Amino acid sequence: METYLVLFTFLGAVIALLFAGFTAKRVLKFSEGTEKMQKISKSIRQGANAYLKRQYSVVAIFFAGMFVVLCVMAAFDLLTWFVPFAFVTGGFFSGLSGFIGMKIATLSNARTANACREGLNRGLRVAFSAGSVMGFTVVGLGLLDISVWFFILKFIFKLDPSTITTTMLTFGMGASSMALFARVGGGIFTKAADVGADLVGKVEAGIPEDDPRNPAVIADNVGDNVGDVAGMGADLYESYVGSVISASALGVSAFGGDIKAMAVPMLLAAVGIIMSIIGTFFVRTGESIDQKALLKALRRGTNLSAVVIAIIALPVVWFVLGKESLGLYGAIIAGLLAGVLIGFSTEYFTSDTYKPTKKLAATSETGSATIIIGGIGLGMKSTAVPIVIVAISVLCAFFLSGGGAATESGLYGIALAAVGMLSTLGITLATDAYGPVADNAGGIAEMSGLPAEVRERTDALDSLGNTTAATGKGFAIGSAALTALALIASYIEKVKTVNPDASFDDFSLMNPVVLIGMFVGGCLPFLFAALTMESVGRAAQSIVIEVRRQFKEITGLMDGKADPDYASCVDLCTKSSLREMVLPTIVAVVTPIAAGLILGYQGVVGLLAGATVTGFLIAVFMSNSGGAWDNAKKYIEGGAHGGKGSEQHKAAVVGDTVGDPFKDTSGPAINILIKLLSMVSIVFAALVVKFHIF
Amino acid sequence: METYLVLFTFLGAVIALLFAGFTAKRVLKFSEGTEKMQKISKSIRQGANAYLKRQYSVVAIFFAGMFVVLCVMAAFDLLTWFVPFAFVTGGFFSGLSGFIGMKIATLSNARTANACREGLNRGLRVAFSAGSVMGFTVVGLGLLDISVWFFILKFIFKLDPSTITTTMLTFGMGASSMALFARVGGGIFTKAADVGADLVGKVEAGIPEDDPRNPAVIADNVGDNVGDVAGMGADLYESYVGSVISASALGVSAFGGDIKAMAVPMLLAAVGIIMSIIGTFFVRTGESIDQKALLKALRRGTNLSAVVIAIIALPVVWFVLGKESLGLYGAIIAGLLAGVLIGFSTEYFTSDTYKPTKKLAATSETGSATIIIGGIGLGMKSTAVPIVIVAISVLCAFFLSGGGAATESGLYGIALAAVGMLSTLGITLATDAYGPVADNAGGIAEMSGLPAEVRERTDALDSLGNTTAATGKGFAIGSAALTALALIASYIEKVKTVNPDASFDDFSLMNPVVLIGMFVGGCLPFLFAALTMESVGRAAQSIVIEVRRQFKEITGLMDGKADPDYASCVDLCTKSSLREMVLPTIVAVVTPIAAGLILGYQGVVGLLAGATVTGFLIAVFMSNSGGAWDNAKKYIEGGAHGGKGSEQHKAAVVGDTVGDPFKDTSGPAINILIKLLSMVSIVFAALVVKFHIF
Repeated sequence: METYLVLFTFLGAVIALLFAGFTAKRVLKFSEGTEKMQKISKSIRQGANAYLKRQYSVVAIFFAGMFVVLCVMAAFDLLTWFVPFAFVTGGFFSGLSGFIGMKIATLSNARTANACREGLNRGLRVAFSAGSVMGFTVVGLGLLDISVWFFILKFIFKLDPSTITTTMLTFGMGASSMALFARVGGGIFTKAADVGADLVGKVEAGIPEDDPRNPAVIADNVGDNVGDVAGMGADLYESYVGSVISASALGVSAFGGDIKAMAVPMLLAAVGIIMSIIGTFFVRTGESIDQKALLKALRRGTNLSAVVIAIIALPVVWFVLGKESLGLYGAIIAGLLAGVLIGFSTEYFTSDTYKPTKKLAATSETGSATIIIGGIGLGMKSTAVPIVIVAISVLCAFFLSGGGAATESGLYGIALAAVGMLSTLGITLATDAYGPVADNAGGIAEMSGLPAEVRERTDALDSLGNTTAATGKGFAIGSAALTALALIASYIEKVKTVNPDASFDDFSLMNPVVLIGMFVGGCLPFLFAALTMESVGRAAQSIVIEVRRQFKEITGLMDGKADPDYASCVDLCTKSSLREMVLPTIVAVVTPIAAGLILGYQGVVGLLAGATVTGFLIAVFMSNSGGAWDNAKKYIEGGAHGGKGSEQHKAAVVGDTVGDPFKDTSGPAINILIKLLSMVSIVFAALVVKFHIF
Repeated sequence: METYLVLFTFLGAVIALLFAGFTAKRVLKFSEGTEKMQKISKSIRQGANAYLKRQYSVVAIFFAGMFVVLCVMAAFDLLTWFVPFAFVTGGFFSGLSGFIGMKIATLSNARTANACREGLNRGLRVAFSAGSVMGFTVVGLGLLDISVWFFILKFIFKLDPSTITTTMLTFGMGASSMALFARVGGGIFTKAADVGADLVGKVEAGIPEDDPRNPAVIADNVGDNVGDVAGMGADLYESYVGSVISASALGVSAFGGDIKAMAVPMLLAAVGIIMSIIGTFFVRTGESIDQKALLKALRRGTNLSAVVIAIIALPVVWFVLGKESLGLYGAIIAGLLAGVLIGFSTEYFTSDTYKPTKKLAATSETGSATIIIGGIGLGMKSTAVPIVIVAISVLCAFFLSGGGAATESGLYGIALAAVGMLSTLGITLATDAYGPVADNAGGIAEMSGLPAEVRERTDALDSLGNTTAATGKGFAIGSAALTALALIASYIEKVKTVNPDASFDDFSLMNPVVLIGMFVGGCLPFLFAALTMESVGRAAQSIVIEVRRQFKEITGLMDGKADPDYASCVDLCTKSSLREMVLPTIVAVVTPIAAGLILGYQGVVGLLAGATVTGFLIAVFMSNSGGAWDNAKKYIEGGAHGGKGSEQHKAAVVGDTVGDPFKDTSGPAINILIKLLSMVSIVFAALVVKFHIF
């Protein structure tokens, strides 16, 4: 039976990739529009490609260094020889996911703008199709990587299940490292360009957003692609792969090495892909620019996929593991439901159709200080709901899958909940990745002077993209928390293979080493958020200076008689974001190893738990504050509280500017951080168990 | 010997109170100055008294309710009958500490202003003496409460040591509840008045701070007293008492019920009082308005006290517990040192003589958004240093006191570290409480039209007060973290007395109930910060509307021909802060009980640990961000980056306004929160052990 299970997983991966390929071909058949549109799109594409090429060359140095370190460890028998290679593969595929997503996004922006000239539904279809290419590339590559490695380790090298899973967790570490570079680097790029362009263009010079006279406008559009597309692609590749392999690893210990328990998460992922593909065919809308109708169009696809997966998971679990394991089905449903509910909660706190964001917009009446206080309060308060949702789903997953009798089964259940939550990733990612495409399309429409109705349509699509992005973020955070818990459990399993005396009781909160680990771990997300925010600040400042210089030195620029030097801004963003992304990533990789060498494996577990808790809280807080500020500004621009140009609007712009690095740089990077910490700990477990001070 | 130990503690308390009394008498001999100054001081005093009276009547309802609940629990044998009374005593003394401190502060503000007419040193002596009255009242009442209860329980009712300590922990809960009300209510009052006065006065009407035409100016000065004095007094009473009794409780379990181990923390506290009194005599300065010289004057007193305590603690431990327990001396020193180092770190991050705040001031060049991002980044980054300091001191305290062999001894060591840190409280609190007095003196000097040189002197004192306040906050947070850890250990001891099967191993991080408790607990400080910030926002908004109304409706107000209606603003602040303080306190009391009834005692320990970690982080983050914004603004007002009135200054004012509730409402309240959660859990432990779902 094992062979068939692997084959089915492999098949799921191939179907996803084929679907992505066909969809890409269909998108590329659309016209890119006028010559001007083509020219602008090409500049964006070139900037994005140039950035990515340089990013990969920096990342390559890191990977080469880590490869050597891992080889040395393998030479000292602290790892198997598969590990260095698995690490590099994970990084490669994660980067490839981002690259393909960005490629198609930059090829679709002008096409979406052009399709919007003909109608809203046509625009939606092009943008959503581009998003689908990205979504299914990510899940397809993820599952391909998993199934091929599994096949090699199991059927060629005939390793035992436990060695297979710990080796596979290593490519999780590769994927996470790559994802962190992509998220942090891309996040700094996009927000430095955005903040820099706004501060000088909108605030100082008083020209509208996406105005072609602004030298940072192309950099801003490039940023959407390298941050929100390439960064997100690498990020979710990592989430997806991480959740599946950590569940497989825990399945091995829960079912005493039974390969079938290992296969269940992979099968679920494969089933999820097929159901997500079906869901995409149900996304279509009419011609009215009505946010609710548009949102309904997208939701129809995702909800349908979720329902069908919920139904089909039952026979899958029953068939593979037997009737007595049906509690695990409960765990999967707990995860799926939690994902949906966290999405709702995010929408409630960040969409201007609900009270919190409306109230936030009202605080602009007393100036920028009160809207900042209000937004921070809103974000902090909003953490309570997803915390309770995650808590309940963890409890359900644990106890439904038999954790009361055997802790290992319960932990496997928690990991399966994460897989359940991410099983619809193909389509949810499509609805998420379509946002930046629509955003770019709007920029192109503005810059190439298309009629106002086109811009209205792209704006409608873009605004919807903000809502789906917020939902997507809630989803990413929720799955990160569950996956991180599963990875902590996997870490302990790994420690046990090296030190059989280790037990669950080592990790008592009354062990001061565990407590101190928790304090240090809890601090990491704060430190990480601070580092990334400061990076954005520094990078934005350099853009501000450059834009001011161009406004002053290029004669005729403001009258539209001379072109600004777009490339210099793109180059500046590239350089500063690549310089700034190194330190945070090094902190993430080095801290758990250093903590382990000082505090031992007990301290590492404390560190991971502390980082997961505060990481989840900070990520939710920052994403929701940022989303709410963004939408409060949009709400005011829609005419409330004085509308565009009023003092209230200026206050809201301050809020939005603060929110930019919150929601698009620091917040999302923390999701990756908490998983990368665990992955690094797992890979270096043997070292830490053998050498430590306390 | 026991009798002598108690006697010595009692003596320490009496000496502190006598010293406070004499100092108060000396302060009151100074003149209050001109008739106008007397009138203003009287208005402030009346407003503060009126507020406190109404606050106590609201708090009385809560205490009456809790008293009934505790009596019912005693009737069902879930508590001893001492508990309800101990609870009320703790609340009473905590409130009394705040009341006396506020009384003397409001009697000294005009006296300080008047003394500043004669010279800087004279002004410093008056303000610092007022602070000393407060400092020694707090420690005196705290130690009195402890020694009298100990005497009653031990020598009259002849209870066993374990019952004595758990009963005494109950008055900790009373003190914490009172402190939370005082901190939250006072914090909302002071910041609502401050923000409201600034937003309309400074920003909209363009009149200077403390201008008598501003209707909210008296409320602002009242706020300094009810928030920064009465609130802080109740707060530190609670910290002090909490640290001593939790150490006593852990001493009982570490030394098998030996009463001497219980007495050591009390003795240390008594020794600390005497050394602190000696330290106060070394606080004096010259006549140059030089911040460094002034700071040195204050530091001379605190450092001297710390050094002498460090020396004398050695014979105390040796004499009482014998040579074999000298490791505990190491724990005390670890705590003392950690307190000093955290103070330095706070100063580094928030004083404008160092790089971080200078760099923050520079971000004002690109507007309010960048200074907000910069300040949040600074605060988040600054958490790393105190976390490492606390981690190292916990490790040292634990292992030096023999925690490697017996966990209980190590936990006792951690608790003693907290006592060591707080042993200098008498004098550190004096340097802290002097700040609001100087602030008020400045307001009175401005309002009564004293010559510019007087205002210069009060400004110098006030500015120094900002630095000592920041140091004091770092100190309060550090001791709160250590005390909270000790209280968690005390909770587990208490659980063991009800359920002897409970063990340290119940609290493994791999127990999902513990993990979920951590998530929920971790969320509480976020929720709490959000609730208190929103309260400030709402209350400030109502002040803004009232001040605007007065500016519009009272003719001749802006020309100085008519007086504003100060009382209506004071009344508005009083009403809204009392209304707003209830919900956060209820959340703090109800959550640990509810969590316990659902998740059991294992979940409660997770909750307490999670709340301690994120509470510490959020408190440091918010205090340091707020302090840095405040001083960045002052730095710009001193002439840097365009100086007063420039665009940069406006940006810095936005930062300062956001920082106000950060550093004076939410941040400090969280210190109390994390201890109150543990105290409540301890009192309700028997209930939770008997009834819970999971």
